[in-house]
Amino acid sequence: MARTVLSSATKEVIIGFDQPFVMIGERINPTGRKLLAAEMKEGNYDRVVADALAQVEAGAQMLDVNAGIPLADEPRILAEVVQLVQSVTDVPLCIDSSIIEALEAGLSVYKGRALVNSTTAEEEVMERVLPLVKKYDAAVVAISNDDTGISQDIDERFRIAKLIVERAQDHGIKKEDVVVDPLVMPIGAINQAGKDVFRFVRRLREELGVNTTCGASNIGFGLPNRHAINNSFLPMAACAGMTSAILNPLHEGLVPAIKAADTLNGVDPNCANWIKMFREPAPEGAGARGGRGGREGRRRRD
Amino acid sequence: MARTVLSSATKEVIIGFDQPFVMIGERINPTGRKLLAAEMKEGNYDRVVADALAQVEAGAQMLDVNAGIPLADEPRILAEVVQLVQSVTDVPLCIDSSIIEALEAGLSVYKGRALVNSTTAEEEVMERVLPLVKKYDAAVVAISNDDTGISQDIDERFRIAKLIVERAQDHGIKKEDVVVDPLVMPIGAINQAGKDVFRFVRRLREELGVNTTCGASNIGFGLPNRHAINNSFLPMAACAGMTSAILNPLHEGLVPAIKAADTLNGVDPNCANWIKMFREPAPEGAGARGGRGGREGRRRRD
Repeated sequence: MARTVLSSATKEVIIGFDQPFVMIGERINPTGRKLLAAEMKEGNYDRVVADALAQVEAGAQMLDVNAGIPLADEPRILAEVVQLVQSVTDVPLCIDSSIIEALEAGLSVYKGRALVNSTTAEEEVMERVLPLVKKYDAAVVAISNDDTGISQDIDERFRIAKLIVERAQDHGIKKEDVVVDPLVMPIGAINQAGKDVFRFVRRLREELGVNTTCGASNIGFGLPNRHAINNSFLPMAACAGMTSAILNPLHEGLVPAIKAADTLNGVDPNCANWIKMFREPAPEGAGARGGRGGREGRRRRD
Repeated sequence: MARTVLSSATKEVIIGFDQPFVMIGERINPTGRKLLAAEMKEGNYDRVVADALAQVEAGAQMLDVNAGIPLADEPRILAEVVQLVQSVTDVPLCIDSSIIEALEAGLSVYKGRALVNSTTAEEEVMERVLPLVKKYDAAVVAISNDDTGISQDIDERFRIAKLIVERAQDHGIKKEDVVVDPLVMPIGAINQAGKDVFRFVRRLREELGVNTTCGASNIGFGLPNRHAINNSFLPMAACAGMTSAILNPLHEGLVPAIKAADTLNGVDPNCANWIKMFREPAPEGAGARGGRGGREGRRRRD
């Protein structure tokens, strides 16, 4: 029963088989957001703060923080953003960079137990990231590709995930602190990508006994109404055993879809969270709305 | 690879592991619909016709037809409704009654290959329903309870489902023509009901090799915003291996949720159905809408 414990200075979040699905807000990331990238480079973090607050308000239990801006001082920016976000919210963070110095800069100022995003099975990457994860007593996202790239063979990806878990253990990192990312490919390009991920996640849970996460927004890439793809993908992934995802909690319908999956997976005891979220506001109220999720709860009447 | 072939006079629908999820419209059912019950009893079928057309328009590939009205001549009404619905739509029907004479009346006028809803494992029920299913070369829904009631033990329910399949085979009905209903209980009352159904459906598919269906609207009974529960439940059930359900296709978001599940399960080759349903109407159009599902496709913009 894998339990990955993350924390901020004051709050603990557990990713686990018996826990509600953990939504990690993806918005604090300049990749593909020109305006945000330019602002972050100038040291203007107003949008970072607004994105942090909005995502937590929408229901994110954790936030991913990325400062990958070309030609910028990424370690300094990432450290500043980590400190700033920790000063305005109390959720644990996922520190996200492909640059080892940036990961270290972020970890060195982080208060609590962070999730490091990420290592692959590439030799050089593992041997730089895993010692850092151990040094700061963090947990780590393990992406199941290696020096040869991303295999389309699920058996091969499983082998690679297992290899990272074992290498982490060699570095003194417990299996429960490795959260495997099965790599979600766009179904518009690879028709079997959804089905493959569900099968892979089930194996990772049942055979390897690890938690899982993914970058969820990729699955519908290139398709119309792609957010509706996500709103089905995440409950299905949760049904297959996925326990967290990096996603945009502001997308319409996504948080209710995941909270419903929690009730259906039996990880919302007595449906208490669901009832709190959608309780009718007053007897004279029409339709099911109210609470934080009220806006999502609107529906056509019978 | 189970393939349950149903048909009307002119159209074939296949419920199967490699097929899109089959949505069976539930609306033509007077249970809990006082006005419809009164009208049907008087021989006024205007609402039946409207419900049939609306459900097919919304995406139902089949329609359930039930005429269970207290103190009414159910066999006559069911036969009339079956004929009427077949005269205005071309989708195959699910003929639904707990009264054997009504099932026979419906089957005797039906054009094509019907799905009979339903038998249980109760001795008397099986021995009356199965010969009828054989006589009319129909398929049958098998509900996994017996004379002792509904077991909360999934192993026991699996045993009962297997028993019905074997009894059907004794009557000359092929396994692929038995569609098992795992019995979906409200999660508001039984917290593990969702999780149990997913586990059960997976076993029915992997071990018994049968198609499955369920009355989907029950799962969120008693909870606020219950339709949002359904919109996650059905993709999750499809992920676990369920191949059809009796549901209300007019509920907001349900058809897109299921169509997205089809793309994710790899049963919508090249995502062609999805793209057709949600294709952007014109280059100058804003947001993802258009097609039959356009109304469902509206979303907040980033």
